[in-house]
Parts: sequence; C-alpha cells; structure tokens
Amino acid sequence: MGFSAAVAGASGYAGGELLRLLLAHPEIEIGAVTAGSNAGTPLGQHQPHLTPLADRLLGETTTDTLAGHDVVFLALPHGQSAAVAASLPEDVLVIDCGADFRLTEAADWQRWYTGDHAGTWPYGLPELPGQRDLLRPARRIAVPGCYPTVSTLALLPAVAADLVDARDVVVVAASGTSGAGRSAKPHLLGSEVMGAMSAYSVGGTHRHTPEIEQNLRLVSGSPVTVSFTPTLAPMPRGILATCTVRVRDGVDTAAVREAYARAWADEPFLHLLPEGAWPSTAATLGSNAVHAQVAVDDRAGRLVAVAALDNLTKGTAGGAVQCMNLALGIAETTGLGTVGLAP
Amino acid sequence: MGFSAAVAGASGYAGGELLRLLLAHPEIEIGAVTAGSNAGTPLGQHQPHLTPLADRLLGETTTDTLAGHDVVFLALPHGQSAAVAASLPEDVLVIDCGADFRLTEAADWQRWYTGDHAGTWPYGLPELPGQRDLLRPARRIAVPGCYPTVSTLALLPAVAADLVDARDVVVVAASGTSGAGRSAKPHLLGSEVMGAMSAYSVGGTHRHTPEIEQNLRLVSGSPVTVSFTPTLAPMPRGILATCTVRVRDGVDTAAVREAYARAWADEPFLHLLPEGAWPSTAATLGSNAVHAQVAVDDRAGRLVAVAALDNLTKGTAGGAVQCMNLALGIAETTGLGTVGLAP
Amino acid sequence: MGFSAAVAGASGYAGGELLRLLLAHPEIEIGAVTAGSNAGTPLGQHQPHLTPLADRLLGETTTDTLAGHDVVFLALPHGQSAAVAASLPEDVLVIDCGADFRLTEAADWQRWYTGDHAGTWPYGLPELPGQRDLLRPARRIAVPGCYPTVSTLALLPAVAADLVDARDVVVVAASGTSGAGRSAKPHLLGSEVMGAMSAYSVGGTHRHTPEIEQNLRLVSGSPVTVSFTPTLAPMPRGILATCTVRVRDGVDTAAVREAYARAWADEPFLHLLPEGAWPSTAATLGSNAVHAQVAVDDRAGRLVAVAALDNLTKGTAGGAVQCMNLALGIAETTGLGTVGLAP
Amino acid sequence: MGFSAAVAGASGYAGGELLRLLLAHPEIEIGAVTAGSNAGTPLGQHQPHLTPLADRLLGETTTDTLAGHDVVFLALPHGQSAAVAASLPEDVLVIDCGADFRLTEAADWQRWYTGDHAGTWPYGLPELPGQRDLLRPARRIAVPGCYPTVSTLALLPAVAADLVDARDVVVVAASGTSGAGRSAKPHLLGSEVMGAMSAYSVGGTHRHTPEIEQNLRLVSGSPVTVSFTPTLAPMPRGILATCTVRVRDGVDTAAVREAYARAWADEPFLHLLPEGAWPSTAATLGSNAVHAQVAVDDRAGRLVAVAALDNLTKGTAGGAVQCMNLALGIAETTGLGTVGLAP
Repeated sequence: MGFSAAVAGASGYAGGELLRLLLAHPEIEIGAVTAGSNAGTPLGQHQPHLTPLADRLLGETTTDTLAGHDVVFLALPHGQSAAVAASLPEDVLVIDCGADFRLTEAADWQRWYTGDHAGTWPYGLPELPGQRDLLRPARRIAVPGCYPTVSTLALLPAVAADLVDARDVVVVAASGTSGAGRSAKPHLLGSEVMGAMSAYSVGGTHRHTPEIEQNLRLVSGSPVTVSFTPTLAPMPRGILATCTVRVRDGVDTAAVREAYARAWADEPFLHLLPEGAWPSTAATLGSNAVHAQVAVDDRAGRLVAVAALDNLTKGTAGGAVQCMNLALGIAETTGLGTVGLAP
Repeated sequence: MGFSAAVAGASGYAGGELLRLLLAHPEIEIGAVTAGSNAGTPLGQHQPHLTPLADRLLGETTTDTLAGHDVVFLALPHGQSAAVAASLPEDVLVIDCGADFRLTEAADWQRWYTGDHAGTWPYGLPELPGQRDLLRPARRIAVPGCYPTVSTLALLPAVAADLVDARDVVVVAASGTSGAGRSAKPHLLGSEVMGAMSAYSVGGTHRHTPEIEQNLRLVSGSPVTVSFTPTLAPMPRGILATCTVRVRDGVDTAAVREAYARAWADEPFLHLLPEGAWPSTAATLGSNAVHAQVAVDDRAGRLVAVAALDNLTKGTAGGAVQCMNLALGIAETTGLGTVGLAP
Repeated sequence: MGFSAAVAGASGYAGGELLRLLLAHPEIEIGAVTAGSNAGTPLGQHQPHLTPLADRLLGETTTDTLAGHDVVFLALPHGQSAAVAASLPEDVLVIDCGADFRLTEAADWQRWYTGDHAGTWPYGLPELPGQRDLLRPARRIAVPGCYPTVSTLALLPAVAADLVDARDVVVVAASGTSGAGRSAKPHLLGSEVMGAMSAYSVGGTHRHTPEIEQNLRLVSGSPVTVSFTPTLAPMPRGILATCTVRVRDGVDTAAVREAYARAWADEPFLHLLPEGAWPSTAATLGSNAVHAQVAVDDRAGRLVAVAALDNLTKGTAGGAVQCMNLALGIAETTGLGTVGLAP
Repeated sequence: MGFSAAVAGASGYAGGELLRLLLAHPEIEIGAVTAGSNAGTPLGQHQPHLTPLADRLLGETTTDTLAGHDVVFLALPHGQSAAVAASLPEDVLVIDCGADFRLTEAADWQRWYTGDHAGTWPYGLPELPGQRDLLRPARRIAVPGCYPTVSTLALLPAVAADLVDARDVVVVAASGTSGAGRSAKPHLLGSEVMGAMSAYSVGGTHRHTPEIEQNLRLVSGSPVTVSFTPTLAPMPRGILATCTVRVRDGVDTAAVREAYARAWADEPFLHLLPEGAWPSTAATLGSNAVHAQVAVDDRAGRLVAVAALDNLTKGTAGGAVQCMNLALGIAETTGLGTVGLAP
C-alpha cells in the first residue's frame, strides 16, 4: 500500500464513511483517526460497523497527530479546517469535506456563512469541465456539499450545451437524515423523522445555494439564479434532487438526452437512466454513482432533471476519495463502486 | 344516528380510511361495504385495524347493494364511477373519490386520461372561494386528487391575492406509498420503497397536473401553467408539496404571510405555521389538517409555499367526509380531527 | 366539560400523547401544561401536531401550577413523581406514567432501580382480575410500563387458567423508538435507527422485568420467572411482544384460544385475532387496542402468544386515560379509540 | 479472471445480491443470467442498481443457457433446483440458495415441506465444525436458510461447549422484508410494512425450524428442540435473532464469552461485540459479517444470544459466495466484506 491517510472527524458520519471506503482501498493504509470531544475513546464505540478499526483510540485533532501522512481528510465542523490545514506541510494532500474553502467569492461567504472567508481551494467535483486537470496537481481540495454535487451534476450538461435559460432554476431536494450529521438534536431523532417528510430553510436560505449557482455559472453563458428548497426524508442516506429550468425554444427531450449521453459517455460514475425508468436513491446506496433521468415538459416549457446519489458516498466521502485518487495519481475509480446496495 | 352510508371499494386504502372516519362519526351508520375481486370475503381480512367491522362480508359493487343509503362513497378504479352513479337515485348523495368527474374540460380529460369524459360534478374542495355554497345542495360530488388538494391549497391565497404570476408554477411533491393504492406491484413492495426516494412521471406527465391548473385558474387573473413532479417517499402516508411561483414586484414574506393568515382565518383545517417552523407530514397524520409554511426568496424572485397533509385523510377520505358533512347539513368538522398522530 | 386536567411533562412524547387524547375527550378541559427545561416556551414548539394548544406557554412543574385541577398526569423522569404527588391534595386524582410507584416490593425497587422505594400505588392495568374495583376509588394510580402492559396482557389468560407453567417465560419484544423518550442521544437519531433492528439490555437487565413478573404472579399458582429481551425497531410507535411459556400436558391451541376468548369477551380493548391472522402494530396505531394471536407449538411444548399495541397509547397515555375514566366515574372507553391508523 | 459463473433466478432479490457480489469478485466472470417469467427482458429493468449488467437480457433457466460455466448459482423457487441440477455435469459446481437439499432427513422434509425429498447436499455453513473440509471438494452445495444461518451461529459455541441444555431453545427473529422475496403480495407492500412490526407463523410452523435443530444437533450431546417465531420488521434487509436457552449450572457470562471468543478467534466473518455493546443489523448491512452479543441471565437461568446479519448477504448470497470460494480453492474471504453500510 503506497499511501497513508489520516481522518480528522472520524466519529461523525462523513468520517465513518471515509474510513469505510479507505478500508477497502488497495492503495491506502489508514493512519491517525482523530476526533473532537470523542478523543480518547475507541472508534468502535462510535462506528460499530468498522470492526477492523474497533480498538483504535481516537486521537486529538492536532498537528502532531495528523503529521506524517500522505493525505489528510478533514471532516470537521465549519470553520475549523483553515487552522488545521495551515499547520500541515504544503506537499501533504489535504482534502476538506467542510464548506470553508468551497466558495470563490468572499462576498458570498460573508452573506451565507458570515465571518471571514478562509479562502478558496480547487473544487473537488471532477465532472466539471476541465476540473480534473486542476485536481491532479492540487494539494488542497475542497469537496463539494452534498446538495451542490447532485444539483450541479443534474443540470450541468443542459446548461453547458445552452439548452436552458439558467436564470430561473428551481431545485427541490429530499435528503436522508445523515446529511444533517451526528448531532443529537430532537428534530433528528428517529421518532420524529420516521414516517415523515419535512421541509426546512423554506424561502431560499440554505447555504448550499450559492455553491450550486457558482458551479452552474462556470459553464453558463447567462446569469444563474437558483431557488433551492431542501426537504428531510425518512431514510438514513441518499438525496433525490428534482431540478427544473426553462428550456430554450425548440429543445425537446431527445435533444436533452443526447446532450447528457454525450457529456457522460466517459464519466465512470454518472449514469443516465433509460427512458421511462425511475431514479431511486436505493440503486446508488453506498456507491459513488449518480443516476439521472431527464425529460422536457413541453407544456410548462421546463426541463425536469432528477438525480439520485448517496449523500455520504458520492455526496461527501466518495467524492473525496475520487479527488484523492486523482491527486495521488491513482486510477480515479479505485476503491469506489458504481453498484448500489438494493433493495 | 341520522344517516346511513355505503362504501364501494372498501378493501382498498381509500375505502379503509373512509370506514375508519365513518366509524367515529356520530351522525353516520355504516351500511353496505362492497368490493371488486374481494367481494365475498370478510372485511377484517383486508382491513385488520377496523375490528368493529371485522366480520362484515364484502358485497358486490352493484345497484342492489348500494341502494337505500343516504350517502354512497365510491372508491373505485378510474372509469367505474359513472355507471354506478347513474344507477343511483338523484337524491342520494354520491361522493366519488376517483378522477372521473373532476375535470371541467372534456379536452383535458381526453388528453390526460384518454377516452370519453364522463362529465363534471361539483368539486369537493370546500376551501375554494364560494365552493361551500355549491357543495351544500349538491348530490354528486367529485373529491379532488391528493396532489391537487395539497398543491392548490398551498398556492391559493397567493394566486387569489394576485401576489404571484401563475404562469410558471413549479410543484415537487413527495408522497407516501398509500397514494399508489393497494395494487401489489413490485415497485411498491416494502423492500423497494423503504430507505429510498424515487421520482416518477418525470417531465410533467402526471394526471393530476391539469386538475391543479384548473383549480388555480379559477382564482387567477392570468394564465396558469404548472410543472409538476411527484416523488415517492419511504412512508405509508403523507404528502409534502413544495410549490414555487414567481412573485410580483415588491411582494415580500410579510405580505404573503398576511394574505395567507387572512384567507385561512376561518378555515378549520388550514394552518399557517409560525415563522421558522418546519411543516412535517407527521403532524398531520390521520387528521384532516393541512400545515403550511410560506416565504419569499428575494434573490430568486419566487414564493416558496410548502404544505403537508395526510393523503388518505384530507387528501382523500377526510376531504370526502368534509364534503358529506356540508351536503348533509352537518357541522363541517364533525368526525374530523385537526390533531395529527405524532411522533 | 366536567373535569379539568393538568399534564406535567408536556413536552415529551408521553405528555404529547396525553394531550392528544385529552383534546378529543368530551369530559375533560385541559388546564396547566408544564415542563422541566422547556418551561417558558410555547407548547407548539415541541408538539407541532397539537395546534389547538400551540400558543400555550409551558409552566414550571410546581405545586402552584398543578394545583386546582381534578386530575394531574405526571409524565416525568423517574424519581420525580413522589415529591410532586406529595404536594397535591389527597382528593386530587394523580396518575403517574413513571415507574416510581409500580412495584409492590421495596427489594425489587432497590435491586432494579436502586435508591429508596417511594411506595406503591394502585396499578393502572384495569384488565387484571379485580383491578377495576381498586382503580375506581383510587386517587393515586401508577400506570404500567409499556412492555409490562403488552407482555402481561399477552400471557394473562393462559397463566390465570393454569394452562402454562410460568416458571420459564421468555419474552422478546420489539419497540418503536418513542419508547425511549425524547432524549437526544446519538443512538436514537434517525440515521442510526432507520433500517436497523438492534437489541439492548441483553441478558435480562431491563427494569420492566420485575413488573411483568409481579403482574403474572398475581394470577399464577406457581412461581414466575421471566427472561425479557427488548429490541429497538425502526418505527416511531408500537410494540410487538412475542411471549412463550411451557404449556401443561394436554393443552392445545383450541383450549388456549377458548381461554383467551372467554377472558376477553367483555374487554373493550383486547382483541384476539382469528386463527391464521398476523398481529401487526400498524393495526393498533394511535388506538387503545391490543391485538393478540396465540398458538401452541406441540413439538416445542410451548405456547406462543404474540401481542401488538401502541406503546404511547395503550402502553402509556391511553392506559392512563382509561384509568382516569374509571376513577372519575366516566365510561371506561370515553375518548379512547379501538381502531388503529393503518396503513 | 479464472472462473465463469451463471446465476439462475437473476431477477429476484437473492439473484440480484449474488450478481452484486460477483461483479466485485476478482476471480469471477459473470456468464448467463436467467429468470422464469422475466426471461427475455433486460436485467436493468429488475435490478436498477446493477448498471454494469443493465443491458444483459435474461435467458430462460434451461440446461443450454446454464451449461459451460464453472459455477452455477440457483436462486429458484422451492422444488425447482433438483431438475436443473440433474441436467448439469457432475464436475460443475452447483450452489443452491433454495431449501431443496438442506435437510438430511426425508421425514423432516415431508413433514415441513411435503412431497418427495430431493436429497441432501453438503451444507453450506463453513462455520460448522469440520464443515470446510466437506465443502472444499463438494460440487453440489446447499446454502442454509437465512434464519438458520443466524440462529445456528448465535448458539453454536454454547451448544458445542455443552454450556447449555438445548432441549428448550427459544428463537425470536426479526427480518427485513427482502427475506420474503420479490413476490408482489399485498401484505408485503410498503404501505403495509413501513412503521409496523408483525409476527407470522405463530406457533412454531416456520419451515426453517427443523434446519436450525438439525444444525444444533450436530454438535449437541443432548436432544435439541427449538421454538421459533419469525417477525417482519420495517426495513429492507437484515435479521436480528434473539436466542435463549437454559444454561447448565454454574455457567456465567464470562464463561460464555470465553467460549465464543475461542470458537470465533479464527472466523473471518463472526464478530463478538464488546460487553455492553448492542448488536444492530445496520452495522452488517451489505457485508458478510455476523455481529453477536451474549450474556447469561442468572435469574432466569438462560443464556441470551443475540446475533445480527444481512439476510441477503451472509444470510444467502454472501454465504453462497463464501462456499464458492472454498470449493474453487480461492481464499475464503475473497469478494466479501466485513464492514457494513452504516448509518
């Protein structure tokens, strides 16, 4: 095994998923696993599925514990990544699963997150045009948010091919509860979420909104505005994003399907479903795959693009490992499956 | 107890919910319960929760079995209601939970359902302006579809007050699986739907679309077009509808909240949540309540209206009983709760 | 409305269920609603389904706030009921949903709960032989635990009729997560419990064990020992208890069914399913009903009795209201349904 | 890739899981995939997660289509395996996931399954004492049932070490719905199973009972009788089995834990949890692992052994691949994970 990896934030959901993937990765040896308030306890207490690492004690998230690895994954609360990253040598690959370095505009950061903007790192969505070339040499990578990953990918081929007018994008996404992290809040209790759909951040206030716009703006000739509403679904994992945008005159389903098929022909993780098939999060569970279905609603003049993925895998940890593979010169798909766990 | 009621289609989910509500209704005595292929079997075999009716044998859905009741509820597959209704006296109250008599335009029927249009009955959504006056004397009532009920109610005050431009409505709704009925299809098996969100009718092909447009058109000064995408959520009951529409210049959240508060001040089942609260289907479970949250997304120029209800109660059987109460001269809320079963 | 009721612990699940039932109870007016750390906040923030009480401010759980009601329900953490009850007049009906006053033997209390035994109140399981006569005049009532309610009822007719040898009872019960209360612990998060069954208190250490034994001992001629293992099921509500016990020689399924049918002939909430039917928690959801199925396994020489109920309704708050009805001289079934919410 | 594999019954849940595992197996090339009534349709229509095989047409399950492979997996309805197996050469490895060849006694077969006993093949539970030596040379292997796998493994070390008296074993197991297969029956609809626990085969009538007894009898000095009650849990996958049996005098938790630790020291898939930890099906999801917790209930005189696994993986398809590895001379753990998908 050629590379050693440390995971900071190993007792959370993103950290657990990183370790699950890294345990199966043939080129990686797992080094330090660290945590905040859980430091000093065995990993098995928090991640009972990771039996090969059950007896590993969680260390403190410090420069000392993270030093000496080829790659360091940060799965920390917002605002904590900058200090940790600054303490690590520049030639160490640091991959941040948090939001701190995703936005390119300081004004966006201040508006949506408040406080000082830590900066901008190469954005870890390899499927953006030209992005792989930026990620291969990078030693600092900001992994996208889960909603921006699925929403961007769902719309990218249509926006890039100028088949739509991106000024009035509407995204409604349903996420499994692990997207909210492992914080023990009453509204995330099983008793509250099972058997219930709920909406939050109603009115376009979710922080992932500017990130979706930033991504689409990269490939759009026109301005981009996104109305984004997240909903909470009674399932542990998975996001289903329903994205609609006005189509340009004369664009029909066939033209859209052709654009997606062409754009994704060589993408290992992006899968356009056959006409008539339903995207389901179950088919992507635990894999790095994105399944999408697209169709033009002639009456309404809108493209409807629906995409499904696993928020912890392609939406976070799998995306991070994909970026790591690129940056370490390993085949991009190494250690990442395309077949979900279903039923 | 003043009135006798028959239920045709008693072995399905809508029929079961009708019987659950009617059992608790102080003015109703349950008469004939009938079914299609399940005729001849005891009701308890199909509806194990309805223990007071467990030994009732399901009759055939014929004129003979349905005759002699004050009210007849039809919970039949599409296309079967017209013949049954025609065989019943004109002074018997017939309430159809199916789609046959909902649409006012024959052209819409032919486009979305194909075949001959059976006709149009008074539409059983009492919260539409002036509708209660039409329903009180009616002896034939068409209960709205579950998606149209929630989508219409979510948008109605904004459209009626001309706060929005209804030409580009986008609705994305997540429904529990009981909305698909009790047909034993593989994609509705628990193994397939649990832990999964999926989308269907992608591209604006769901038959409830023209019904939503028809309702909004009643109160809108401008043309109405709806892009509607339904999704299937891993829960037995409930719909959460996220509805967005472009707001007119200068309309803000306060103006919208005021319009909703005013419109719903005397509505017994419609509940505008306090600012910052999340609508959740759980809070409406088994009740006839609709919970809604509204906010204007200034950046995107869109109103976001999110509404939750129980698809089998307010979305079908509860709505039907509400109409029955009106038509029989009983207090509108009799036998209908506003408090959901949560957690 | 003849009686006023206060609920202490109104922001928890048991308190919420009490209020849901009391809102629909024709003889009760809801008075004070109090809480611990949530005092001072509106009830609607914690119980979004209880919209008629949404604006009620939660008071402190003190003698002052609870005074002046005909009935006071206590839904408090273990150990807090005694002090509150002592401060209330003896002629006020106090119904405790906690464990403090359930056990008759101080030694049992010290072994299973540790600390001083607060005492013993009339036990609120009306279906125990002769128990209704004890509950009618009582002004202090201890509501049974949810597991003891379902396990006792499942086995009672067989033990009372001496059809079984109660020295080696085995109970394995699956509970919805609301049984664990609203404490925001990581292992109760939706992400952890959805899609998962887990066991806890493995090895007979759950505190409800002595309560089940105490109940069965009341009607058994022989000693009683119970091996009890609780499991956590991915659902908000409901308990399914599978209870097995060795049958005496010659006892067959017919004899057992006859004993149950006879014992439950006049019980309004206990329902023996037809042969071949499966008990399901869904059929009892939100109701005060218990559904049971019984059969003798000749090969293994054991009776298998499986019972389902809603842990928050018949298992806690519904049982409490049933006791209240008895003690206030109201018809026992008032305000309590027997029809569950299904599907 | 050294070996070619065919899967008969590829459109069902067991067949889908076999293909999921074989796609990731480095030594296997997937050959024919066949089905019954689904023959002629593309695999992707039935198994949307298996995108690499989406366009494969399902063949008929005939000698011709299955011929020419190194290994043939049968995931067929009971009673169909014998004829298919008889038509395949003796040196082809045939692994049957059905029940036809599991039981050693014709009398047991006739009692529990009725009809003629097809015969007995080497039993595919490598963890039974000495069983690996029987499986390595075998060319016909009968994979155990899912309940027998988990129940046998949960009790095996205690029975083998004579710590318990196996004459009165009680097993209560909760299974995800995929255990019932992909048959579209109303009681398996999502609307019926979500939010509900139910019991079936109450009274010891489930066909897996004699298989559990047969396994334990192999290592027990005393007679074995099992009271087995299966329950249906609201989750797609997973079984949690709670197994209790009377302990011999003087046996305590420490002695039992020591026996399990010793017995499983070299078992790659069997994992004894630390004291106090809860077994959860989530931790084993999609993996071939079994997690168990054991403790002696001194008061009740019973060992409680609780075990969790994924019914489709270790309980069916993973067990089958484990056997294949042994019989083909591949390392036993090849292509099989021990880390489940959690949360």
